[in-house]
Amino acid sequence: MPFDFETVLDRRHTNSVKWDVADNELPMWVADMDFQTAPTIQAALNKRAQFGVFGYEEVPMAYYQAVADWWATEHHFRPQVDWLMFCTGVVPAVSSIVRKMTAVGDNVLVQAPVYNIFYHSIENNGRHTLSSDLVSQDDQYAIDWADLTAKLADPLTTMMIICNPQNPIGIVWSRETLQRIGELCLKYHVLVVADEIHCDLTLNDNDYTPFASLTEPVAHNSISCVSPSKTFNVAALHAATLIIPDDHVRALVSRGINNDELAEPNSFAIPASIAAYTEGHDWLHALQTKLAANQRQVQTFLTTELPQVRLIEAQATYLLWLDVSQVTTDSTALATFIRQETGLFLSAGGVYRGDGDRFLRLNVACPTSTLTDGLQRLKAGITAYQRTQA
Amino acid sequence: MPFDFETVLDRRHTNSVKWDVADNELPMWVADMDFQTAPTIQAALNKRAQFGVFGYEEVPMAYYQAVADWWATEHHFRPQVDWLMFCTGVVPAVSSIVRKMTAVGDNVLVQAPVYNIFYHSIENNGRHTLSSDLVSQDDQYAIDWADLTAKLADPLTTMMIICNPQNPIGIVWSRETLQRIGELCLKYHVLVVADEIHCDLTLNDNDYTPFASLTEPVAHNSISCVSPSKTFNVAALHAATLIIPDDHVRALVSRGINNDELAEPNSFAIPASIAAYTEGHDWLHALQTKLAANQRQVQTFLTTELPQVRLIEAQATYLLWLDVSQVTTDSTALATFIRQETGLFLSAGGVYRGDGDRFLRLNVACPTSTLTDGLQRLKAGITAYQRTQA
Repeated sequence: MPFDFETVLDRRHTNSVKWDVADNELPMWVADMDFQTAPTIQAALNKRAQFGVFGYEEVPMAYYQAVADWWATEHHFRPQVDWLMFCTGVVPAVSSIVRKMTAVGDNVLVQAPVYNIFYHSIENNGRHTLSSDLVSQDDQYAIDWADLTAKLADPLTTMMIICNPQNPIGIVWSRETLQRIGELCLKYHVLVVADEIHCDLTLNDNDYTPFASLTEPVAHNSISCVSPSKTFNVAALHAATLIIPDDHVRALVSRGINNDELAEPNSFAIPASIAAYTEGHDWLHALQTKLAANQRQVQTFLTTELPQVRLIEAQATYLLWLDVSQVTTDSTALATFIRQETGLFLSAGGVYRGDGDRFLRLNVACPTSTLTDGLQRLKAGITAYQRTQA
Repeated sequence: MPFDFETVLDRRHTNSVKWDVADNELPMWVADMDFQTAPTIQAALNKRAQFGVFGYEEVPMAYYQAVADWWATEHHFRPQVDWLMFCTGVVPAVSSIVRKMTAVGDNVLVQAPVYNIFYHSIENNGRHTLSSDLVSQDDQYAIDWADLTAKLADPLTTMMIICNPQNPIGIVWSRETLQRIGELCLKYHVLVVADEIHCDLTLNDNDYTPFASLTEPVAHNSISCVSPSKTFNVAALHAATLIIPDDHVRALVSRGINNDELAEPNSFAIPASIAAYTEGHDWLHALQTKLAANQRQVQTFLTTELPQVRLIEAQATYLLWLDVSQVTTDSTALATFIRQETGLFLSAGGVYRGDGDRFLRLNVACPTSTLTDGLQRLKAGITAYQRTQA
């Protein structure tokens, strides 16, 4: 492997949200990888820093071309460049779209357990969250279609946020499933927002289906949000792209994004994104291999050392969804105990709602030695917790 | 002068908004300087780029300490660090504050001619602009206090945006004037937003008065917005600070800034701002000298070569307000003509409203040779325009 995913970086005292922890603690929670970004991105950032002038920046056609080329190469789908719009982040975009494209008091439909910040985007803007919970059975999750259909048919439901690949479960939704959802949304006048921020981090050749690649009427009822932030570990680059096939929807969203002051790139967002999307392929493929290996390490460890914890196999992302229902029905208390007892800082599943109280979320985007440390701490924490319950 | 303000930089084809112009054109409009930023900022950006990890970033106490120290040293006033809040920009903050602290349909009072983007922040969010126009007489502007008082007394007026130093006129408001405005706002329940983005760019020892340094009740009815963006030519660094002395106001504004997704710094904003505010003093003082010299060059040129254009003397900023009323009452047509005829791209004054149709705004933050070129083009353009009117 020509890229380095094994050096342990010292990220303490670097203003990192993830690493703002006590000396004995090991953070494996927020979606931020303990790897340096791709060398081509580092080179682009260095070059931009050298230039020395950091005035108002605009988005060149080369940016949109790079995005379109990346999707064509990586995901076998080429969005038209005029469908694309820069914005400063996926979460800012989702919040802005909620404000612009729904009304106060409307329902926004999600599929819990799902990325917790969606709830902030919906509820902090005075809308209601309506969840058609995913149903788990035999270490897999499925859609309850009757429930989903009924909730989409509610006239107060005006938007659905789909997470694909799904965080925290790691599902890569099939083209058939997405098309079926899209047709229901079209039928019931529900606008689709597809959060595809994890789409490049598919594992074991589970390629994802871009929502914008579905049939024309379905695609034209959608807004997809993508970004190099998860792919290349550049959350604080503040760069994302909206894919909006429909002219009218795009005009409205553009007005909202501009009005909310989320449309202008910082000095580094454009050159780094272009570098990522034109020269980052090999780095991504090496990363995918590393992430798949880390998931296997977790699976092997749990099977042999900690069978009371079950892994929901992730088809994508570096966020693993651990079923701890044999240990507790209050994973918040368990996560707090593990952190106090061992220093391992995981995400408790409850924040994702749905059946999250029976789960922990483990971030495995780290060197092998760090993961090994984390798994040992997990075992120690779970074991100690079970002793307290005995 | 140990810093370089004379090298002409080639900024064409660098995604610069300012320099997205035709080959023969010379842009002297948007508030963006044709100088490299301070060497200490460049060093901080280089160092940050080298680190290679760009995950979620938080704002350390060192940032707020650097802001407070800068104000104490440069402006003889030390804000409490707990009054300070990071945000991604002054305009984003003003828009967010308008949304959070006023209601749809309210009046927001400004003093035209003034920074045109205030109108976007007010009107794009469904509020009304109410202007108490500044009154010009003998190359100076004054406040019409009776008019200002009546408009503040309107119960529908719930916010006033003060620009200090004033863009585009370059006024540095006196402590007495600000205190008088502040007391009126307090009396009439009008919250003050002070845009102080140009406060470091005072000329000829015209130091400014921070709104937060006024008497306690007045300061507690205010939100001040500051940033290194104009001072150090880093608009696309996306860094700004709000100074909010009152706990309750700060809590509300904080909720708005977070809800609007404007609270999180990109990877470069914090280290560059700390470098600017701790080590940028000498560079700023050299810049102030250069900007004052450039204004003198313009004054001399107009007096000797183009007496039909009169300079309103700026106490601050690098944006000069040129009275062209002896040439036209439609400065938009004049600016368009000058651009077509000579390539010189200025801001027409009408966008600032008030009496702006009689003015052009000229950005003089550039090397001497560029300014000389610009002034020759201005003379050629004005002369040619007058021939068309003869």
